[in-house]
Amino acid sequence: MHNDEHYMRLALDVAKAGVGQTSPNPAVGAVVVNGGTVVGLGAHLKAGEPHAEVYAIRMAGEKARGATVYVTLEPCSHYGKTPPCADLLIQAGVRRVVVATTDPNPLVAGKGIAKLRQAGIDVDVGVLKDEADELNRMFFHYIAAKTPFVTLKFACSLDGKIATATGESKWITSSAAREDVHRLRAQHDAILVGVNTVLTDNPKLTVRFGEKRKNPLRIILDTKLRTPLDAHVVADKEAETWIITGGVSREQAAAYERLGVRVFSMPTAQIDVRDVLRLLGEQGVMSLFVEGGSRVHDSFLRAGAVNEVIAYIAPKLIGGRGAPTPVGGLGFARLAEAVELDIRRIETIGPDIKIVAAPKRKEESLCSLALLKRSARSNK
Amino acid sequence: MHNDEHYMRLALDVAKAGVGQTSPNPAVGAVVVNGGTVVGLGAHLKAGEPHAEVYAIRMAGEKARGATVYVTLEPCSHYGKTPPCADLLIQAGVRRVVVATTDPNPLVAGKGIAKLRQAGIDVDVGVLKDEADELNRMFFHYIAAKTPFVTLKFACSLDGKIATATGESKWITSSAAREDVHRLRAQHDAILVGVNTVLTDNPKLTVRFGEKRKNPLRIILDTKLRTPLDAHVVADKEAETWIITGGVSREQAAAYERLGVRVFSMPTAQIDVRDVLRLLGEQGVMSLFVEGGSRVHDSFLRAGAVNEVIAYIAPKLIGGRGAPTPVGGLGFARLAEAVELDIRRIETIGPDIKIVAAPKRKEESLCSLALLKRSARSNK
Repeated sequence: MHNDEHYMRLALDVAKAGVGQTSPNPAVGAVVVNGGTVVGLGAHLKAGEPHAEVYAIRMAGEKARGATVYVTLEPCSHYGKTPPCADLLIQAGVRRVVVATTDPNPLVAGKGIAKLRQAGIDVDVGVLKDEADELNRMFFHYIAAKTPFVTLKFACSLDGKIATATGESKWITSSAAREDVHRLRAQHDAILVGVNTVLTDNPKLTVRFGEKRKNPLRIILDTKLRTPLDAHVVADKEAETWIITGGVSREQAAAYERLGVRVFSMPTAQIDVRDVLRLLGEQGVMSLFVEGGSRVHDSFLRAGAVNEVIAYIAPKLIGGRGAPTPVGGLGFARLAEAVELDIRRIETIGPDIKIVAAPKRKEESLCSLALLKRSARSNK
Repeated sequence: MHNDEHYMRLALDVAKAGVGQTSPNPAVGAVVVNGGTVVGLGAHLKAGEPHAEVYAIRMAGEKARGATVYVTLEPCSHYGKTPPCADLLIQAGVRRVVVATTDPNPLVAGKGIAKLRQAGIDVDVGVLKDEADELNRMFFHYIAAKTPFVTLKFACSLDGKIATATGESKWITSSAAREDVHRLRAQHDAILVGVNTVLTDNPKLTVRFGEKRKNPLRIILDTKLRTPLDAHVVADKEAETWIITGGVSREQAAAYERLGVRVFSMPTAQIDVRDVLRLLGEQGVMSLFVEGGSRVHDSFLRAGAVNEVIAYIAPKLIGGRGAPTPVGGLGFARLAEAVELDIRRIETIGPDIKIVAAPKRKEESLCSLALLKRSARSNK
C-alpha cells in the first residue's frame, strides 16, 4: 500500500491534463482510493464543466463509500457554475479527504475544509503543498494581487544577444525551442509585446503547433498608436487584439476599432506598467506572456511586475558592442538594484538551454530575516 | 573481475592528479592489474619527473610480471628527460598493455606501441579514447597546431551583461564561481587580457585559492603600450608578465623591462590574434586563458582562435541598452557567421550556472557531410 504522497503525486499528474485550459479556474486533480486500490480519478478540464472531484466520485461509484479522496486543491463550498464539491464528498460517504493546498478564493478559503470536518470526515491538509501551489501559481497570484501573473520570455545567444549588430534575429534558437514558446503561449490568457516588436518583426503572436485551438489575447503596448493597420495583429483576425496607448483621440482609435481591435487610453502619456496590469486584472486577464522587446522587458522589471522569467539560450556567440540584448532601456544602474532570480529549472531543448527562474521576493528576504532574528532570540 | 573500461577509468582518474601541473608534458595515469587485482598505479605529476608507468611498475614490483598495464597515453619510445617507458614495460615482463589513445608527439606517434608488439606484448588501443583525448586536449592541440589551446571565459547576468550601464561589475557572479575561475587559471600556462581590462579593473591575474603555487604567465594585449607602470600586473612581481604591442620604441619598452616585464612588438600596428598565437606557441605557451574584455573576446572569436568557451551566468537581470556584454567589438554581422558551439557541460556553482562549450569545428561539419554523402551513396 502506498502513502499519501504517492496518491497526491498521482492527483497532481492528473491535474496537469487541465493546465492552460481551465482559466479563469485553477487546474485540479482528484484520486479516490479504497482498500489500497485506486477506484476513481478526475481532473477539471474547462471552466463551466464539472470539477475534478465530480469525475472522480462518479468513476468510483459505490466504492466511494469509506474511501480516501486526494485532491490537489481544497474542495469548493459554494454554488458557482456547479454545486459545491464538499457536499458531493459528504453525500458520497467518503471517510477521509487529503488536500494539497487551500483555495485562496475568498468564496472558499477554508470553508470547504470546515464543511467536510463538520460532517465528520477526516481532513489532512498540506501534502505536496509546494507542488500544488506551483501548479496553480498563476491562479493564486491573480486571486491575491488582482493583476495577471507575468511571465517574461526571451531568447538569446550565449553572449546575450537577441540579434546581430545589423538586426538579424531569425532565428537564434532552434525550431524545438520556438515550438516550446508556442506551448507556453497556449498556457497564458494573453501575450504582450511593445510596438517596436510589431514594427520590426510584424509577429502573428498566435499558437502554431499541434491541433488548432483558441489563441490567447494579443496586447500591444503602443504609447502613440503607431501599430500599422495592416500588421498581422490588426488585420489577420486570428485572435483578439488590444492596443494600450498613452491616450489617443476617438478618431485615431476608430480606424482600429472598425477592424475589431480594442484601443485603451491610459491615464498618463508615459504608460505605467502597473496601470496596465491593473487594467488587465479588471478585464479578467489572469496570466500575461511578455515577449519583448527589450525596452518592454526593462519596464516590466523596473516596475517589479515580473513573476517568472523564461530564457532560451542558443549555443552560439554573436558578438558586437551594438547588438541588442534581452533587457534594454535604462536598466539598473547599480548591481544592488538588479533583479535577483531563483533558478527553478535548467533544461535542454534541442541544442538550446532553457532556464526557468523567478525573481526573489522582497517579502521572502524580509521574512527569513524576521525568522532569523526570532531564532537568534530563542537561542539566547 | 572487472573489464578493461573499469581499469582504464581508474587510470584516467589517477591521471587527473597531474592535470594543470605537467606542462609541457601531458597528464598520464597508469594502473597495473595482475590476477584481477590492482597491484600498482601511478601518475605523471611534473615535467622532468618520472612518467606514470615508472611509478606504477615500481609499485607493482615482481607482480608486474605477466600483468596487464592500463595507460591513458601511449608509452613513450624515445630517450627524453627519462628513459623510454616502452622499454621499462618490456623489461618488467608485462603480458598485455591497454592504451587509451596514441601520443601525437612525432617523437612517439605509434612507435611506442610498435616497440611493445615487437617484444611480443599484446597491445589494445582505444579503450575510453574520447575521455583520454579530452583529458589532454590542450596538449594534443598544441602538438598539432603549434599554438596554445585557447579557453575563452566570461561571467555575465542571465540577460548577458558583464556590468551595469554605469560600469559597475564587482561582483556579478558568486564567490564560488570566482574561486572556480582561479582553479581554471591554475590549469593554464598563461592568462591573457586586453589593456582596457587593466585600465578599468587593474586585475592581479594571479591564482588565489588553496595553497600558494606558481602563478601562470600574464599576457597583456596592448597595441599602444598604455599599461600603467604601477598596474598590479607590472608592479606586483607575483607572476611573469608579457606585454604584446603593435610596435613600440626601445625607449618605451625599457621602462617596463627594467621592472622585469617583457615587451613584444608585433609585425603589424593592428595586432593580429593569429600572430600572437604563433608567438606564444614558439615561446612554449601551450594553453591560454582569455579573460576579456569584450573586444578581445571578439577578436579571438573572429580569428577562429577559440578552442573552449566557459560562461558563468549569474541568476540576475541587469538590463540597460548601453550595458556591456561578454563579446563586444564588431561581432558577426550575419547569424550564419556566428560561432556555433557544442555544449559540453552545464553545472551549477553556488547560485550560478556554468556552461562549458566548444566551437563546432568546420572540419567536423565537412567530415559529417562527406560521411553523409558516402552513406547516401552506399544506400542506393
